[in-house]
Amino acid sequence: MPEAPGDHAPGGSIEILPVTGLPEFRPGDDLAAAIVDRAPWLRDGDVLVVTSKIVSKVEGRLVPAPQNPEERDAARRVLVDQEAVRVVARKGRTLITENRLGIVQAASGIDGSNVDGSELALLPENPDASAAALRRALHESAGVTVAVVITDTMGRAWRIGQTDAAIGSAGLAVVHRYAGAEDGQGNELIVTEVAIADELAAAGDLVKGKLG
Amino acid sequence: MPEAPGDHAPGGSIEILPVTGLPEFRPGDDLAAAIVDRAPWLRDGDVLVVTSKIVSKVEGRLVPAPQNPEERDAARRVLVDQEAVRVVARKGRTLITENRLGIVQAASGIDGSNVDGSELALLPENPDASAAALRRALHESAGVTVAVVITDTMGRAWRIGQTDAAIGSAGLAVVHRYAGAEDGQGNELIVTEVAIADELAAAGDLVKGKLG
Repeated sequence: MPEAPGDHAPGGSIEILPVTGLPEFRPGDDLAAAIVDRAPWLRDGDVLVVTSKIVSKVEGRLVPAPQNPEERDAARRVLVDQEAVRVVARKGRTLITENRLGIVQAASGIDGSNVDGSELALLPENPDASAAALRRALHESAGVTVAVVITDTMGRAWRIGQTDAAIGSAGLAVVHRYAGAEDGQGNELIVTEVAIADELAAAGDLVKGKLG
Repeated sequence: MPEAPGDHAPGGSIEILPVTGLPEFRPGDDLAAAIVDRAPWLRDGDVLVVTSKIVSKVEGRLVPAPQNPEERDAARRVLVDQEAVRVVARKGRTLITENRLGIVQAASGIDGSNVDGSELALLPENPDASAAALRRALHESAGVTVAVVITDTMGRAWRIGQTDAAIGSAGLAVVHRYAGAEDGQGNELIVTEVAIADELAAAGDLVKGKLG
């Protein structure tokens, strides 16, 4: 019989540190070098939470777009269609789509915030690969073995507001499955699967901010 | 013109501390006293994240239920219907419902984990009031002014796994609205509303665990 899973929170406290003073990234920039420079305190076992916007920028996932608000919105809608393989829901003018990676979110993740007014950002082409590359680069340049979570901001059905959630990762189990485990009162936890990477993404957003 | 909103993450790091060694709670127990006992380090400005299961227990929101798995499941289904004002979606045998407080989640929040095998737990009757009462009691007994977030575990549409989210709170703004703010590149953030309380709930779950 396989061993029953342990707890996803093995005890102890967690510290969430912001990485401040990062530059405005452009295509081709060395993200790992910038992080090593601004977060020299990174240690083995840390989880580095990175917004997908930064990854999109360094990977050149930026598309020229009109500055005029209406034309910009129309351009955005064309990109939303291009990136979507399926529309799963519609709320007012917002489309909830699934992209080719299976990521379901509003507007295929196309975003015009924190990018130049003449551009729009697409999601990284393969966020898991981006996370793995960043993890490797940090190991090579700084000798640290960290996990990486790449995040995007997502709304929640039937709920006001957005949280950050994970769209890619490397070096950690994104979901902790409890199937087979028993709680303190002997009840088997059958459907419980904690979305650890999403909780890390949300936690990271508490120190990250939107305006910087 | 009203002042533009600031950032939801004003800078600096956050520490998430587990509150360990809490007893198994029963109806009528003094939750505030137990927390003061186990978290003497609570300080003004801290956010206390409490799972709704504990609140339901001390508030006596427990219902006798059969131990036989099938009968227990049938009893649960009756409670789900009783607590729901509306079924908003259905996935296999799972109902997503809205309760009278407007909380939308699977099975009206009825839960059989971490409760005695002869009982099922309903959500607290009024989680905002529960949070406010706990906040008051902590102020009276320990002289600290903390915010309180009451959480429950929720799945996410079109996504595997669950995270903790807020179902009640006191002493903090649950959503940070960016309408009117401009990001670092001059783009106005119109629809961005960060669900701070949900992010705090998710962060808290990283140290809380499910099996204790």
